[in-house]
Amino acid sequence: MSVEIEIKATSGQARRGRLITPHGTVETPVFMPVGTQATVKGVSQDILEELGVEILLGNTYHLYLRPGVEQVRGLGGLHRFMSWPKAILTDSGGFQVFSLSELRKVTEDGVTFRSHLDGSSHFLSPESSVEAQIGLGADIIMAFDECTEYPADAARVRASMEMTLRWGQRSKKYFEDHQREVPWAGGVGMGAGTQNHPAEVLSTAPGEPGWPGQMGALAPSQPTATQALFGIVQGGMEHVLRRESAERTVEIGFDGYAIGGLSVGEPRSLTREVVESTLEHLPRDKPRYLMGVGTPEEIVEYSRLGIDMMDCVLPTRAARHGLLYTSEGKVSIKQARHAGDEGPLDPSCACRVCRRYSRAYLRHLYASNEVLAQVLNTIHNLSFYLDTMRRVRHSI
Amino acid sequence: MSVEIEIKATSGQARRGRLITPHGTVETPVFMPVGTQATVKGVSQDILEELGVEILLGNTYHLYLRPGVEQVRGLGGLHRFMSWPKAILTDSGGFQVFSLSELRKVTEDGVTFRSHLDGSSHFLSPESSVEAQIGLGADIIMAFDECTEYPADAARVRASMEMTLRWGQRSKKYFEDHQREVPWAGGVGMGAGTQNHPAEVLSTAPGEPGWPGQMGALAPSQPTATQALFGIVQGGMEHVLRRESAERTVEIGFDGYAIGGLSVGEPRSLTREVVESTLEHLPRDKPRYLMGVGTPEEIVEYSRLGIDMMDCVLPTRAARHGLLYTSEGKVSIKQARHAGDEGPLDPSCACRVCRRYSRAYLRHLYASNEVLAQVLNTIHNLSFYLDTMRRVRHSI
Repeated sequence: MSVEIEIKATSGQARRGRLITPHGTVETPVFMPVGTQATVKGVSQDILEELGVEILLGNTYHLYLRPGVEQVRGLGGLHRFMSWPKAILTDSGGFQVFSLSELRKVTEDGVTFRSHLDGSSHFLSPESSVEAQIGLGADIIMAFDECTEYPADAARVRASMEMTLRWGQRSKKYFEDHQREVPWAGGVGMGAGTQNHPAEVLSTAPGEPGWPGQMGALAPSQPTATQALFGIVQGGMEHVLRRESAERTVEIGFDGYAIGGLSVGEPRSLTREVVESTLEHLPRDKPRYLMGVGTPEEIVEYSRLGIDMMDCVLPTRAARHGLLYTSEGKVSIKQARHAGDEGPLDPSCACRVCRRYSRAYLRHLYASNEVLAQVLNTIHNLSFYLDTMRRVRHSI
Repeated sequence: MSVEIEIKATSGQARRGRLITPHGTVETPVFMPVGTQATVKGVSQDILEELGVEILLGNTYHLYLRPGVEQVRGLGGLHRFMSWPKAILTDSGGFQVFSLSELRKVTEDGVTFRSHLDGSSHFLSPESSVEAQIGLGADIIMAFDECTEYPADAARVRASMEMTLRWGQRSKKYFEDHQREVPWAGGVGMGAGTQNHPAEVLSTAPGEPGWPGQMGALAPSQPTATQALFGIVQGGMEHVLRRESAERTVEIGFDGYAIGGLSVGEPRSLTREVVESTLEHLPRDKPRYLMGVGTPEEIVEYSRLGIDMMDCVLPTRAARHGLLYTSEGKVSIKQARHAGDEGPLDPSCACRVCRRYSRAYLRHLYASNEVLAQVLNTIHNLSFYLDTMRRVRHSI
């Protein structure tokens, strides 16, 4: 098995289900917090567990550059490296190559780019992206695609979509040939993945006194488990191209399907239209993942349309800028009017931040540039997003 | 009552006891983590509680400048402001005025200085320092002193010591006249402190649905409790002046006595000598506080000499620079040799960091400039210091 979705209930287009992964089940529709560099910025893994996070997203581009895929693979994969026993999804790295790196050159073969960290030159292709994602060992990995810019003319959108389809085919081919090389294949410290690595590295954990108690849980639940590869639908804002991209991606055949190339500057109403029309052409028995959205209102809206999975940096990034989501709307905690406010950030929220601290204190931490501001703000925003998704699931 | 120490056991010069404060008891000898701006940088209060912290230090200079004493007083004092139900000690602000501010001018009256934040001009005196500390409402507050620089000639040391004695007298006078103005005098929202503040601010907390559950615990355990004022012994490195300073400070009469003016650049052996000789002249029935020390070895050593209380930024500041204290010595986590190390930071440590994360992961977080590096490093170093003090207490 790789990853399966069980649909438990539907309501209109919306579906409530369970995603079964090698590292636990995930209630859907789900919002996946972004843990770019193997950490959700400022929040320790035990607090993520307390918040009820069941799946995290990691960024292949960042982890590929630092600490490097071989480093993570040698340490048993991303789950063990970051001590996260639950599910992980990695993106293909493509989006960050396009948005963060310099001097990129796209050819049919792949993308040459310079690291945003040190200017070093790298090459990412469908094969090397999937190779990296197998080495990192997430439960769900993504085909390498080109995120088409917006706006773009019809010819450009079609050419980009065609390349994404060819890259999807190559991603799948590489995955089929190498999926047994995942670091946890056959269980921690066993299986094909160990052949490339010193046995002592992978066998240090179990049995050592007091350390590391949790590592047993980092083995996949099924020794025969493998990763799942998701394909990505592109096609710009044209319904006809989206339909073609969806149908041909499904023809290639993946464990799940993502809708990419949205939230790239187009109007919100257009995003919704494209999501809706694309979903019609995706199989109902596979997970459907809308990449890179969104606001609290949007994640509710897209769940209603039948999306199962979403991710976005918004709750964590906004938190670092003092922008907090509450049941009463957005709060900019830096504003002076909160300085004397002894009330909680959100009276309807039961998170550890709202239970304990006042707006006045959160405002002071932010105004004083204290690290605890980022920590507490991020915990609250994630809690708000996860509570929002809990309510959505209960309503389906 | 203000603060009392009960001595439970002695071993040589060392004493094990309990400090009884309006906000709980503190096992001594104790190391007090520094929470400069009403936060131990990066660590939330519930984790401090989990670590077993029973008393925190707050810096009057920083809190006076931001958010301001009236702000904190209006919110019920520092305990309520930062949601910390246990004991707090504030320093007088003098040390930071001398070390952080610009253009300071010292006269018999007090110190004029410019804020390191915005260059604004301020004046701090024995009266205004104690006034600020009453407004902040810590359990233990400090007389305003001059920390004599090192080296200094005999005349300068004497003159400085004499001024500290006069300032000590003035601090005590102001405290005696105003101690009933502490925000929590007579219980939260009651007492003399409320006369200066809108009643609605102080009465919002209790009884509001769901908020704030913990606030009841922020009332002092005894409604008649008051703050304690500690005097500070100066006198440079001269035993005879230290003795005179100690005797005359005791003559003024304080609830406890601190040894100041050490760890200012003098050799370690001299520090120890001065501590030892000063302690001889301090009463055995009052708490003894050595300010601004030290390394793990030093806090053990000074406990053996009979010190009851210590504070230092070292564990928290070093953590932010990736310098970690372990049972096997200091570890610089930034070093590349930790990059592949799957073992825990300290195999003898049971803190939440050592239980869960590898050196490889901590090294990655630090190298990637991730906020979680600071959070986890600080938790571990504090845990190491607190464990060290636990062992010291058990050995007495």
